[in-house]
Amino acid sequence: MNTYEYMSAVVRRYVAALNASDLEDIVALYAADATVEDPVGSEPRRGLDAIRAFYAKALQLPLRVELQGEVRAVANEAAFAFTVSFEHQGRRTTIAPIDHFRFDAAGKIVSMRALFGPQNMHQL
Amino acid sequence: MNTYEYMSAVVRRYVAALNASDLEDIVALYAADATVEDPVGSEPRRGLDAIRAFYAKALQLPLRVELQGEVRAVANEAAFAFTVSFEHQGRRTTIAPIDHFRFDAAGKIVSMRALFGPQNMHQL
Repeated sequence: MNTYEYMSAVVRRYVAALNASDLEDIVALYAADATVEDPVGSEPRRGLDAIRAFYAKALQLPLRVELQGEVRAVANEAAFAFTVSFEHQGRRTTIAPIDHFRFDAAGKIVSMRALFGPQNMHQL
Repeated sequence: MNTYEYMSAVVRRYVAALNASDLEDIVALYAADATVEDPVGSEPRRGLDAIRAFYAKALQLPLRVELQGEVRAVANEAAFAFTVSFEHQGRRTTIAPIDHFRFDAAGKIVSMRALFGPQNMHQL
């Protein structure tokens, strides 16, 4: 089920949905009991309602998301480096996380963790 | 202790030690009870003897390691994308993992996981 091709397609769909501000397309990638820890070190959100609320807030500003390099994936896990940028009050901020997805047997994301710190946030 | 600057310096030291085939400098980054799961999905090696044996085997061929993009680090964790390439029987192989380090309170790596699959291995 969770082949490289499948998991990398989910990552690309996730990136496309973020760029399109398509909240339901993002939520559809997650399992019912999934957790989202974004950023790493914060309290994880659990379940689709909490996850929908998290992304609804994240999508209040239009995001420009670009993958950096190839998607890494094996054994029900995927990781990818990317940048996400947004403009607020005339200033553009670019964040450069590495996200980690863990997939369940049905091909849904059961765990997402976004690893970045203040030093990975850049003002242009 | 585990500031961004500290953790990214450990990552750069790890990359430099791989490029220099400096086995003891690599092992010195790890805690006594650390685990190394490389690649993700394989049985983790535990403890410095097992970790030393793992890297001794990995360093049988000279490696050329290059970071891709910035080190991501926060909250005792770091992740980084990179390429590692080596030549064997006239053929160069390049692997593109994303590694994840978890640090203990003493600043040693207690968990390393290298996420890559066959599709992240490229023959030139």
